Amino acid sequence: MTEKLIAQAQSITLFENAPFRMEVGADLSPVQVAFETYGQLNSAGDNAVLICHALTGSAHAAWYNNPNETAPGWWDPLIGPGRAFDTNKYFVVCTNVLGGCYGTTGPTSINPKTGLPWRMSFPQMSIRDMVHLQKATCDALGIKKLVTVAGGSMGGMQVLEWPLLYPSMVQSIMPIATAWRHSAWCVALHEPQRQAILLDPDFNGGNYTAQPARGIGIARSIAMISYRSDAEYALKFKRDRVHQDRYFDAENPFQVESYLRYQGQKLVERFDACTYLYITWAMDQHDISRGRGPYEDVLKTIRVPALCAGISSDVLYPVHEQKELAQHLGNARYVEFNSIHGHDAFLIEWDQVTSAISNFLTDVAPR
Amino acid sequence: MTEKLIAQAQSITLFENAPFRMEVGADLSPVQVAFETYGQLNSAGDNAVLICHALTGSAHAAWYNNPNETAPGWWDPLIGPGRAFDTNKYFVVCTNVLGGCYGTTGPTSINPKTGLPWRMSFPQMSIRDMVHLQKATCDALGIKKLVTVAGGSMGGMQVLEWPLLYPSMVQSIMPIATAWRHSAWCVALHEPQRQAILLDPDFNGGNYTAQPARGIGIARSIAMISYRSDAEYALKFKRDRVHQDRYFDAENPFQVESYLRYQGQKLVERFDACTYLYITWAMDQHDISRGRGPYEDVLKTIRVPALCAGISSDVLYPVHEQKELAQHLGNARYVEFNSIHGHDAFLIEWDQVTSAISNFLTDVAPR
Repeated sequence: MTEKLIAQAQSITLFENAPFRMEVGADLSPVQVAFETYGQLNSAGDNAVLICHALTGSAHAAWYNNPNETAPGWWDPLIGPGRAFDTNKYFVVCTNVLGGCYGTTGPTSINPKTGLPWRMSFPQMSIRDMVHLQKATCDALGIKKLVTVAGGSMGGMQVLEWPLLYPSMVQSIMPIATAWRHSAWCVALHEPQRQAILLDPDFNGGNYTAQPARGIGIARSIAMISYRSDAEYALKFKRDRVHQDRYFDAENPFQVESYLRYQGQKLVERFDACTYLYITWAMDQHDISRGRGPYEDVLKTIRVPALCAGISSDVLYPVHEQKELAQHLGNARYVEFNSIHGHDAFLIEWDQVTSAISNFLTDVAPR
Repeated sequence: MTEKLIAQAQSITLFENAPFRMEVGADLSPVQVAFETYGQLNSAGDNAVLICHALTGSAHAAWYNNPNETAPGWWDPLIGPGRAFDTNKYFVVCTNVLGGCYGTTGPTSINPKTGLPWRMSFPQMSIRDMVHLQKATCDALGIKKLVTVAGGSMGGMQVLEWPLLYPSMVQSIMPIATAWRHSAWCVALHEPQRQAILLDPDFNGGNYTAQPARGIGIARSIAMISYRSDAEYALKFKRDRVHQDRYFDAENPFQVESYLRYQGQKLVERFDACTYLYITWAMDQHDISRGRGPYEDVLKTIRVPALCAGISSDVLYPVHEQKELAQHLGNARYVEFNSIHGHDAFLIEWDQVTSAISNFLTDVAPR
């Protein structure tokens, strides 16, 4: 057994003496940011890598926060000494996004003006707001250049905004299984998820004492279907039931139903309902062309090397969109992960993801 | 303008003096069946065609029930003089399925033993139960042979059960965009739909006075996503909002959200919540191999000519499953409808569907 790599959960307060102006105009200052770092920043401050997380993710991208933790961070196999993001070379940073519920200011935080949690009074936020906060965090850490900005799904949306908002700071990008604008299909998939949370009587207009567990459960079920694939479910669950001997019994769920309910319950324990609403709204509002012109023209202005990756079985951010993204970016290569696991493959297919990232970094950032 | 073809809504009471035994053992007699017919049965009773409807469908497959009706039945372009199911040749019958809410005995009917609606006390039913009731209806109408049994989606499930339950009566089948067993993926998609209905406080354990509109709305949203396609939604809705000038406003839905809500509301007005639960359960329990052996062997025993059809963009009953079905059936041909409309294409792509059905019938049932 190798010893567990430890990365402490960190936190910083920003904008204590200046406003943090969101796109909607609200000033959120001061802003708390939860983050983790792996490796060491060099004296020039130019060996940093920024990792951006997905919808229900956190700053805990890799390693363990303490020796007793049972599972490492969500991209652990990719981050560490000798791994794709080699911490012998790079200073890897991951922050919990603005509006998150893992330590960064969001709907669960106290609104200093009222002394109460923001909940549904939190201002509508954008992916661009998230990136502005990441930039302020990088500044506070002394980072001058980002060797790359990488992330899948909603992480990839931040990745695409970075070179548009801070072009001089970003040297390459890795948008993985993501979107230059949230498609009508993806917006459609979010709609019943939000409605289910809003329908749950326990939601109580956002003023819940206990989480609206059934609403979150339904939302997570829908999401988990969109994150996986027909073929994977067929292989994994077949037509098995929880009790094999009770066929015509609505109280005897199929294994796949039981799995979805379990996934729902797990999310209830770790993710806040209001936050789920706000982050899905931010994703739906994501569109790199907003205020900038036709998306093809906007993508063309991103001239840093880009690694675009699609997943063969992704029904949420399908490969044809990833190819289109790569085609319009100024300097992109496209790789495809062959997987049965659907959209979530970027959190599962470690060999393919490692290989794509390592090859790309070797080419664009030899050290 | 051609004159409207009129088909009267009909109804028959069956099993007045005999039990109608469901698979779960319950006796449902007497059973009411709503049906429609188009064309004339010949004296030999051997020119009949049975049309099977999908989840929220009805017996109103074609024509108009009265001259003031604004829209015809759901497969109207396929049924009539000179159409694919040519009523100059065939006696076309469609019945509302057992457990339906369009006139056939189901959860909204009165339980004669209590004098109250069945609602959630209705027995669990199966696709096979539906077919047994269709057979009794055919008998009552004097039908001796079915030239073909045709249907898409849940209709196709009935189609596949017919030659297994009544082999001597069926001369050909047309299972379209359907399943020999409901896949884990399809079961997964039903699960949050049912949960949303059950979560709605207005559902009240099935004892509602007004429909649980929000729960049904969420269920229908999820269903409508699975019935259509990414490409169609992108083309139809783009990223348009209801109010173009209110970008960061959670109360300003995307057009696709507005569409899904409207579809939900329409279903609330025309389909019963308990019925939705029972029919989706019946679909999930559908498996032609149940009690019969491996599905490949079971399908092989179906030797009548079969027209299997898949839809290129169907995410619910994907083409690879339709091809597999055709491959295992004893005597099948496979056609693929090229469409952007997803699963619903069998209710939209009239030219392709007409051509496939006409060609098949010309070959297997020349008259």
